[in-house]
Amino acid sequence: MAPSISGYSLVKSLRWEGGELILLDQTRLPNEVVEERQNTAEQVWESIKLLKVRGAPAIGIAGAYGLLVGVKPHRGESVPAFLAATRKVADYLNSSRPTAVNLSWGLKRMVAFAEAHAISSSSSVELYDELVKEAVRIHEEDKAICRAIGENGKGLIIEGSGVLTHCNAGALATSELGTATAPIYLSHSEGKRFRVYSDETRPLLQGARLTSWELQQSGVDVTLICDDMAAYVMSKGLVQLCIVGCDRVAANGDTANKIGTMGVAILAQHFGIPFYVACPSSTVDLATKSGDSIVIEERDPAEVTSFGARRTGPEGIKVKNPAFDVTPHDLIAGFITEKGIIRPQFEESLTRAFGRLRP
Amino acid sequence: MAPSISGYSLVKSLRWEGGELILLDQTRLPNEVVEERQNTAEQVWESIKLLKVRGAPAIGIAGAYGLLVGVKPHRGESVPAFLAATRKVADYLNSSRPTAVNLSWGLKRMVAFAEAHAISSSSSVELYDELVKEAVRIHEEDKAICRAIGENGKGLIIEGSGVLTHCNAGALATSELGTATAPIYLSHSEGKRFRVYSDETRPLLQGARLTSWELQQSGVDVTLICDDMAAYVMSKGLVQLCIVGCDRVAANGDTANKIGTMGVAILAQHFGIPFYVACPSSTVDLATKSGDSIVIEERDPAEVTSFGARRTGPEGIKVKNPAFDVTPHDLIAGFITEKGIIRPQFEESLTRAFGRLRP
Repeated sequence: MAPSISGYSLVKSLRWEGGELILLDQTRLPNEVVEERQNTAEQVWESIKLLKVRGAPAIGIAGAYGLLVGVKPHRGESVPAFLAATRKVADYLNSSRPTAVNLSWGLKRMVAFAEAHAISSSSSVELYDELVKEAVRIHEEDKAICRAIGENGKGLIIEGSGVLTHCNAGALATSELGTATAPIYLSHSEGKRFRVYSDETRPLLQGARLTSWELQQSGVDVTLICDDMAAYVMSKGLVQLCIVGCDRVAANGDTANKIGTMGVAILAQHFGIPFYVACPSSTVDLATKSGDSIVIEERDPAEVTSFGARRTGPEGIKVKNPAFDVTPHDLIAGFITEKGIIRPQFEESLTRAFGRLRP
Repeated sequence: MAPSISGYSLVKSLRWEGGELILLDQTRLPNEVVEERQNTAEQVWESIKLLKVRGAPAIGIAGAYGLLVGVKPHRGESVPAFLAATRKVADYLNSSRPTAVNLSWGLKRMVAFAEAHAISSSSSVELYDELVKEAVRIHEEDKAICRAIGENGKGLIIEGSGVLTHCNAGALATSELGTATAPIYLSHSEGKRFRVYSDETRPLLQGARLTSWELQQSGVDVTLICDDMAAYVMSKGLVQLCIVGCDRVAANGDTANKIGTMGVAILAQHFGIPFYVACPSSTVDLATKSGDSIVIEERDPAEVTSFGARRTGPEGIKVKNPAFDVTPHDLIAGFITEKGIIRPQFEESLTRAFGRLRP
């Protein structure tokens, strides 16, 4: 099903190797590239908590593999005892980032799988082996979704053109190709020549620290810019396409994503540059009618008043620090999904592709 | 001529006090507020070089006062010897930032004044005293221009509204009221209630370090945001007016200013928010027909890939770091100048206000 990208070098946020989970510590990027073997549930809990692994899909996969790390020592026990341990470790891991939907989704799926296979398993060793296969399936499914997004989106990138992206919806946030980066990696692996501009994405600098690093690692021609330089590169004719990721897409196409995304979309419209959202179907929320009902989380002011370890804003200064913004659907040319590119009118096209509106 | 703002507390970038130049070290803001007495020409040279004083008008004034610091020890000498010293110190100070137009302008004006008054002066002490008066005049003229910009622009700020600004065209960059901040300070000193949003302004963070600090010091209701949050605050109806400074205004109204300014102007247009440029007439360059002929300086990539001691972008990453952008005239509602607000069509109105187009 998934096209081959063998031989193409991609950064890996995590991998399951020799029966062990290995995580790339993203908090140390881009200065240090350190992979950490995860030996205990406590270590995985802390890795998720400290954002060593981040990005919704990657956290879901890390949770599933983390559960394996946590239940491995229980393999000698009875099946019911092993099952009880599975539930307990899952609850524990879920508490590392309680608001991360993909984490609880991945853990629930693993627990439900264990419950469904407990009776047919002759031993906890056998049940553990089945759980390993399920975790690998979760991982492979995400890879396949990313590859399909890449296949569906790669035609948007024209030879010799420029692509601008914001934040990190890349290999580091998912598995393998990423979402917003999937059309980029596939086009690049096929020998297309083009430029990528990566917004640094204040306040947490995911574009500077992560996106520009992972694209650079794969040999993509990437240029790092500050967020307030996006209009400049567009005005100079250097950008022909914008692709960003998304956190939630409402039924009418309004899209919540990292703060700054809406600004990029407005600039793109001004310069006549098509603006696309890479979007696994799991982020389409048809129960949310429009962006008006999406609540924007405000984060710690210290993220804005400091840069690295250094204070950049005055002591006691008032700060706004919205984590997300909502890009109105009329600024979006299309959603690049694993089912194809969804184009306006989104109210109809999204529902047609992803199900019926709930009453 | 200038309206009184006595009793209103304003940050001072520099002052001449008791026959001595005192500079606020802007490189240590906002963490430390340190004023430095300047005792030698060498110290002033270094202060200008290291950007302890920055902003075109402030550098011009610092140059004039710095010349006084440098020639003070020569007051016992003959008038011709004193005049020679004046020329020598001026050349020396000018080498601290050779591209700063206002620095060489201020120094040239001081030297020309010394030359013109050398014959009529009975001693170098008398000539020095006359030079002090000329430096103070340069300073007072800048204050008067800022006050006039404030008077002409303050009516644009509506009670209860929000004003967004980018970079620092404030008290720290000029004298007293600043340019983009002049309508803000005057409105605030008169008891008007309104909010200000200060873009942090990457890469050098003048908005975070300087603008939000100086407004906070005067008690203005200021909120610091990252550059990629400007669209968000506009979309929430929090901003009714944008005012920015400028480096150069072409005859057709195209305006070069700190990188990111054009993006703000595009967002403002999208949300129907009027976008004004505060503009002392000295920055209008009728010899430059349009923004197309304004060359954009590219600065050190390290400004984008690191902050403070910490690297934020990957080693070896390609970077774009344009210092300025050019906002097209059709995004500008008007120029707030010391001669009033200049409105479109700018080709006619700027020439009418500031002279004839050179052939």
